[in-house]
Amino acid sequence: MTLRSRRGTHQVRVAYYDTDQARVVHHASYVRFLEVARVEFWRGHGLNYDAFEKATGLGLPVAELRLRYRRGARFDDVLDIETWTNKASRASVWLDSAIRRGGEVLVEGSVRLACVALADGKIRRIPDLVLDACLEPGHGI
Amino acid sequence: MTLRSRRGTHQVRVAYYDTDQARVVHHASYVRFLEVARVEFWRGHGLNYDAFEKATGLGLPVAELRLRYRRGARFDDVLDIETWTNKASRASVWLDSAIRRGGEVLVEGSVRLACVALADGKIRRIPDLVLDACLEPGHGI
Amino acid sequence: MTLRSRRGTHQVRVAYYDTDQARVVHHASYVRFLEVARVEFWRGHGLNYDAFEKATGLGLPVAELRLRYRRGARFDDVLDIETWTNKASRASVWLDSAIRRGGEVLVEGSVRLACVALADGKIRRIPDLVLDACLEPGHGI
Amino acid sequence: MTLRSRRGTHQVRVAYYDTDQARVVHHASYVRFLEVARVEFWRGHGLNYDAFEKATGLGLPVAELRLRYRRGARFDDVLDIETWTNKASRASVWLDSAIRRGGEVLVEGSVRLACVALADGKIRRIPDLVLDACLEPGHGI
Repeated sequence: MTLRSRRGTHQVRVAYYDTDQARVVHHASYVRFLEVARVEFWRGHGLNYDAFEKATGLGLPVAELRLRYRRGARFDDVLDIETWTNKASRASVWLDSAIRRGGEVLVEGSVRLACVALADGKIRRIPDLVLDACLEPGHGI
Repeated sequence: MTLRSRRGTHQVRVAYYDTDQARVVHHASYVRFLEVARVEFWRGHGLNYDAFEKATGLGLPVAELRLRYRRGARFDDVLDIETWTNKASRASVWLDSAIRRGGEVLVEGSVRLACVALADGKIRRIPDLVLDACLEPGHGI
Repeated sequence: MTLRSRRGTHQVRVAYYDTDQARVVHHASYVRFLEVARVEFWRGHGLNYDAFEKATGLGLPVAELRLRYRRGARFDDVLDIETWTNKASRASVWLDSAIRRGGEVLVEGSVRLACVALADGKIRRIPDLVLDACLEPGHGI
Repeated sequence: MTLRSRRGTHQVRVAYYDTDQARVVHHASYVRFLEVARVEFWRGHGLNYDAFEKATGLGLPVAELRLRYRRGARFDDVLDIETWTNKASRASVWLDSAIRRGGEVLVEGSVRLACVALADGKIRRIPDLVLDACLEPGHGI
């Protein structure tokens, strides 16, 4: 059975502070790009992450992160970050992303999110409203 | 009457991620350097800022910030950040800093700190233990 | 004679990584917001900063920076950054900014930019195309 | 045959700006910690990365990055970052790291470094002086 993943694209423009002295975007900047794209991916599918944290006292911290750097982005580049769900369970969700400049994939990212109670950091089950923002209706998880 | 300022020096080494494509340290990085130097200035004079926040529920946010950039630091430079108190009252403390490389001043910084309750962000009077970490005994504020 | 300043507004959304444990935006993040707003201010008035650096070998580094923090922005806030020219000469340009959330000014910023040759860091006169992006026609500088 | 890896440990103290509103270190900060630890790992084994870039015109960009987050570090924590070589060839080197607080592993990191000419970004073979800083003598690569 294929995963009924949702999908979204967010655009960022590379700032001067994203660059380093090698004249490309510093590799840590893409971690921030992925975070922003993830929040917008969820917003586009009905999950306001800020409201989620406030309403539930839960958070979705990054438990695992993988990045593969193919080509360096440069200052002022406009990047398209496509995000989709690669795996999902009640324990964690993997969101994958492709960061493109004009169609060319520069960086591939993959993030595993867990769910924790913000008060004590303890692991919780991922609630429906998160899974419903990551997957199409009828996902059955 | 001269202000009986305390004084301290903290060293930082410029990281690759501090640089930008102009091959010097990005101007925002110095703001982070000042913060680290400030925390160490206080630690050196008996104020553990982390313990302070936890014990009192107060914070010392930056209310004003001034930086003057004379020369750019570079990757792997070792910088000496000297910090001292320039003005102090129960309402706010100005900490000044000189960021030097081998004796040469690269950047001058000045930060005004207020005191707030972390729970509601409301302004509070600066407590003795903060003033005592900024000023020599007998400051009379 | 009043300065015939240009004016522009750029919007940023506060990311999770912009926050700190006081649950507001870290004070260094606004330095980055100002940089982005400045580049967009220029773009809106005919100066592509990236193309400028490449075509002229010149840069416009921050020589002085002043920030006044009134209220803290929070995660997911949408901020309007208005930028205008406060002073200008062939030696330097002061760009001022007001960072607002829904009309309320949270932070005021002021940045003095110099002009340097990127190859050697030496000071240069600010060229017409920069002044023309900061000031209305007929500025006479 | 086992890899004759070198090994080094570097200490960082968590700054206030490393935290986010979940009151732990933001996941992107560890990417910066790894970079600093890597530069110090090399320095401890005879490779000054700054001098290397200047002398050879080569760089060692991150081609792949993997992080596994077990527990969150907090403001003012002192972290020990142990770094060692996990795989090495003329094409790339994998450096692994364990980020510990008082013996407990908080984060595990793994970074694959390639070698490029900084002028054109083209892939180059990893030179001896890099491999010699990553591996014990007699590595035979």
